[in-house]
Amino acid sequence: MRAFRITEWGRPPQVAEVPRPSAGPGQVLVRVAGCGLCHTDVTLPHMPAAVGERLGWQLPFTLGHEIAGWVAESRVPGFAEGDAVAVVTQNSCGRCWHCLHGLDSSCPNALAGRGYGRDGGLAPYVVVSGERSLIRLDSLDPVTAGPLTDAGATAYHAVRRVLPRVYPGGTVAVIGVGGLGSFAVQFLGLLTGCRVVAVDTNPLRLKVAAELGAHDTAESLGRLGADAVLDFVGTDDTIAAGLRALRAGGSYGLIGAAGGKLAGPWFGALPKDGEVFTFQGSSVADLHDVIALAGSLRNDVRRFPFDDIEDAYARLVAGSLDGGRGLIVF
Amino acid sequence: MRAFRITEWGRPPQVAEVPRPSAGPGQVLVRVAGCGLCHTDVTLPHMPAAVGERLGWQLPFTLGHEIAGWVAESRVPGFAEGDAVAVVTQNSCGRCWHCLHGLDSSCPNALAGRGYGRDGGLAPYVVVSGERSLIRLDSLDPVTAGPLTDAGATAYHAVRRVLPRVYPGGTVAVIGVGGLGSFAVQFLGLLTGCRVVAVDTNPLRLKVAAELGAHDTAESLGRLGADAVLDFVGTDDTIAAGLRALRAGGSYGLIGAAGGKLAGPWFGALPKDGEVFTFQGSSVADLHDVIALAGSLRNDVRRFPFDDIEDAYARLVAGSLDGGRGLIVF
Amino acid sequence: MRAFRITEWGRPPQVAEVPRPSAGPGQVLVRVAGCGLCHTDVTLPHMPAAVGERLGWQLPFTLGHEIAGWVAESRVPGFAEGDAVAVVTQNSCGRCWHCLHGLDSSCPNALAGRGYGRDGGLAPYVVVSGERSLIRLDSLDPVTAGPLTDAGATAYHAVRRVLPRVYPGGTVAVIGVGGLGSFAVQFLGLLTGCRVVAVDTNPLRLKVAAELGAHDTAESLGRLGADAVLDFVGTDDTIAAGLRALRAGGSYGLIGAAGGKLAGPWFGALPKDGEVFTFQGSSVADLHDVIALAGSLRNDVRRFPFDDIEDAYARLVAGSLDGGRGLIVF
Amino acid sequence: MRAFRITEWGRPPQVAEVPRPSAGPGQVLVRVAGCGLCHTDVTLPHMPAAVGERLGWQLPFTLGHEIAGWVAESRVPGFAEGDAVAVVTQNSCGRCWHCLHGLDSSCPNALAGRGYGRDGGLAPYVVVSGERSLIRLDSLDPVTAGPLTDAGATAYHAVRRVLPRVYPGGTVAVIGVGGLGSFAVQFLGLLTGCRVVAVDTNPLRLKVAAELGAHDTAESLGRLGADAVLDFVGTDDTIAAGLRALRAGGSYGLIGAAGGKLAGPWFGALPKDGEVFTFQGSSVADLHDVIALAGSLRNDVRRFPFDDIEDAYARLVAGSLDGGRGLIVF
Repeated sequence: MRAFRITEWGRPPQVAEVPRPSAGPGQVLVRVAGCGLCHTDVTLPHMPAAVGERLGWQLPFTLGHEIAGWVAESRVPGFAEGDAVAVVTQNSCGRCWHCLHGLDSSCPNALAGRGYGRDGGLAPYVVVSGERSLIRLDSLDPVTAGPLTDAGATAYHAVRRVLPRVYPGGTVAVIGVGGLGSFAVQFLGLLTGCRVVAVDTNPLRLKVAAELGAHDTAESLGRLGADAVLDFVGTDDTIAAGLRALRAGGSYGLIGAAGGKLAGPWFGALPKDGEVFTFQGSSVADLHDVIALAGSLRNDVRRFPFDDIEDAYARLVAGSLDGGRGLIVF
Repeated sequence: MRAFRITEWGRPPQVAEVPRPSAGPGQVLVRVAGCGLCHTDVTLPHMPAAVGERLGWQLPFTLGHEIAGWVAESRVPGFAEGDAVAVVTQNSCGRCWHCLHGLDSSCPNALAGRGYGRDGGLAPYVVVSGERSLIRLDSLDPVTAGPLTDAGATAYHAVRRVLPRVYPGGTVAVIGVGGLGSFAVQFLGLLTGCRVVAVDTNPLRLKVAAELGAHDTAESLGRLGADAVLDFVGTDDTIAAGLRALRAGGSYGLIGAAGGKLAGPWFGALPKDGEVFTFQGSSVADLHDVIALAGSLRNDVRRFPFDDIEDAYARLVAGSLDGGRGLIVF
Repeated sequence: MRAFRITEWGRPPQVAEVPRPSAGPGQVLVRVAGCGLCHTDVTLPHMPAAVGERLGWQLPFTLGHEIAGWVAESRVPGFAEGDAVAVVTQNSCGRCWHCLHGLDSSCPNALAGRGYGRDGGLAPYVVVSGERSLIRLDSLDPVTAGPLTDAGATAYHAVRRVLPRVYPGGTVAVIGVGGLGSFAVQFLGLLTGCRVVAVDTNPLRLKVAAELGAHDTAESLGRLGADAVLDFVGTDDTIAAGLRALRAGGSYGLIGAAGGKLAGPWFGALPKDGEVFTFQGSSVADLHDVIALAGSLRNDVRRFPFDDIEDAYARLVAGSLDGGRGLIVF
Repeated sequence: MRAFRITEWGRPPQVAEVPRPSAGPGQVLVRVAGCGLCHTDVTLPHMPAAVGERLGWQLPFTLGHEIAGWVAESRVPGFAEGDAVAVVTQNSCGRCWHCLHGLDSSCPNALAGRGYGRDGGLAPYVVVSGERSLIRLDSLDPVTAGPLTDAGATAYHAVRRVLPRVYPGGTVAVIGVGGLGSFAVQFLGLLTGCRVVAVDTNPLRLKVAAELGAHDTAESLGRLGADAVLDFVGTDDTIAAGLRALRAGGSYGLIGAAGGKLAGPWFGALPKDGEVFTFQGSSVADLHDVIALAGSLRNDVRRFPFDDIEDAYARLVAGSLDGGRGLIVF
């Protein structure tokens, strides 16, 4: 079968022929219906080799970590051929201190996973280890479910985190309403009684955010006295503006990895009795919730056949995928 | 009576003769037993006048916000002459959104209070408005209770905040074990099963911290994988070291107002799925808890008669009060 | 002015002529727009006199605790004549241990209030003490806002309590979808991603519940594995069925005061690692949230002029008010 | 090797000769140092056979679920021969909804475990599956660590649950200060600033509780206004007394399985805005915490050689083991 693979550090990934894998003990073979494209796929190959080695990654491997499809072979009790499933993006061991305390997205024993150090979903078949990595889809279409596993679940993780600090009548700002932020706008609409303000410099994205339920849209963020700000951009500017926008007791979540910092002193700038948090990825429990909500979500995707995968990534890099998350369908 | 007062912005405070006040409706007159000295007393007079005016402060006023004593006149039901009381440091209205949500230390309606914009406790008598500002002392000696109301309650606020994130067998670091930090060491010992690491550049303070129950002392902070770090210093260095010392899911509390910042990018430096928080002061509920714990606390004070108040502040500024919190006794 | 008053213990309340009150210091006089009718109004007069005395209630007093209207005279800063306001149902002191810990609906210092021991809102004017008891309505019509202050806020208190234990895709059952339960159905729809099951023996109420967003309706409750059950009835039967319907970790809230109990042993019947809770009324913060959500709520009322008040109560007692909460308009 | 086994439903367990097992893939063989005796061991054989079958239990099996010892053979990475380990009492799968949400003591996929349906620790060797069931002991003596895994961890689970509702200066009552309750008294002393009241009808137990740090001891429970009551007995009387002893907002935990119920109506008897909870066993995370605290715990055991096992159980049933938890040492 053909797969889109990283073969050498520093080189762009490429299509290569690999044998079709099969399920070992405790594993399932998934026939991929669709696999979402993510910005990290573009940056992964350019990671220093030493970092990859420290994480225990093995080259070559197939990219793709936003996967859903159908069970093709099963050696996991409870999963049968033909079952529609989403595949959990982040591995986690289920046994360590972090997993036992609900911090499975920080599990130190699973730094390699499908699409990052091991074979992922940009191929017709992918092997998945264990029930912990599989979520049954019931009536949901696996062709488009892939982006829910990472873009959707990461946005949900941020929204779930701030729920105890937001109140009906309060305001929550979402900075950057692209792939992840547009899910956040929707989760906030479903799970809070807050006014949701979408902030973006791209008017097209703001238009979509309004369709998705944002009560207000803006190109920049004022002093809102917000209950929470979720920053899917993460530059110096959005960090400073996000903190200024909060009330005392408010919550600022940094999800965007643009490498921003705060130039000035922290004391006085951070919200009094509030919280600043960051994270990467999501927990398995998050994905269960996202799949449960999927029927109420608009999940815009832009489909590409596998043959057009390089074109699809080129558009992702160029920022010309605004019609939705890029998705390779098989 | 003689009082230690700010009479003019930009001028050092001075002793002045003022009439003894009396209790109006809903008020209590407290005969001050002891009043703690705080670094902010030294900086207050040098605040820009415009800031003071915006806060609604009225000059001249008597300094002193760490007050305990005995009721001398009472027009508040439930409080009688002779009752020993601690006086809550921070005013709060009890009616606004913040007070109704347990954020009374961020109450926007009480920016002036005893010792900051209104007459405080560096005088033989002080007027206190309402039951909300009074806590009965029962068997506790009011002469030394003053420092509990601010130094003690602020340290407690930080410790209470991190309790849900710390676990027996985990580590909590306290950076800066002076007036506030040495209370934090004790609260952590009383309320957690964690190993407490005291960090300070002053060996005398480390010695005291060990006596107060710190399991470890150090001049600087390593990569501990700590559950929490409470930073009572707040420089660039302590912020960077504090963040590095945390595990995923850990909590960093910035209490020290030294004006530090983080030079580098936030993403990657802040603890994943953890929290960064800051605050000022404490809630009324915090002080109730601190007074309840006072019997188990060592509360080192260095007593000065009112006549020596300028000498006491000079020692505070010079950092030569290591025998304990400076306290004016009447 | 004419008012509907309890004049003697054990006697039905009656219309009586009383002088129009005025606002004292720290008070507001509210011109009542509408006042909701509540089952407790019917039972209050038949309370043993000794209980009333122990609570500090003073006879005679005007009934009515679901009040909204316009400020007619104000001696409270920030409120001006003509402002539309809702009146908080439950008094609370704002100073005691309970109020300081967010338990203001259990405040022991405010056992008498408007409509229970003091003059309430079944009259053209009512006096309200303090900002803590007033919530500005902005664009909301005060004529129909009264029922939000008690029926709405009590239902919200129950829903807010269970939010940390409910997850998208889970199930929440509401037993009894009358005045309070029908608000609960709506809050669950606005604030959770759960399937809401309405349970009632009255088919008309189930029909309304479905219109309000219940995903399922039933006359009795099966083994749902529910995240939460909110029981607005509270008989032996609903308690037993409610507990059986929960998953491990689930939450059972008893709001209905029908006096039910559980016949069998608790261990094994109560949800493992879950919670059973009960409460009465709501906090001031709850009402702020409810007013913020009011624009998204259907608030069915059945209006009666003051002249028909006895007829309105007769229908309430007979259970023939299914068109909505009974409301006296002025 | 000789083992103490249930061989037939309805028959008392007996000593039998069985082959020494070995570790399969992903397993560890533990040489048992000590195994605690638990009341449930006595009742297990008298369970209806149908219940055992429904749980998937396989007869015969060796009793004993409070196990610690040394690794004798290891096929689990990170555990080597000679390592001292405690064995987690309750199995859990680590993959299901309950495990993913921190409710692993309610895992539905692990209803059989070591000592309940599978071979347990009342034998010189026991097989343990997976890292999730093993906790390294470091300096702790495995001979006496067994009772921490169940009696200790169950008591800890109750204490950890109530921590958010208890405040320094508040009161927590522990009803029944035997094997579990005496651990609860100690955890409360280590982790709260509350006054701990031990309640028991056995004066010897009260004397021990006072040695363990209980501030007060009593034969029955008054109206304390307690923050929490932990009931390790669970009769009609202790349930009624426990509820009466709480303040509004307080927490009642039913741990004792004596089958009690509350005769009267719930509304009015349950603490307003508080919680009633129950549970069985503990989570893996709980045991990590307990092992971390073990150095600060007094863990009274009464040692018996394996030859005296029937005598040891006879004393347990007769209630004549007050010198501590019965422990079989090998």
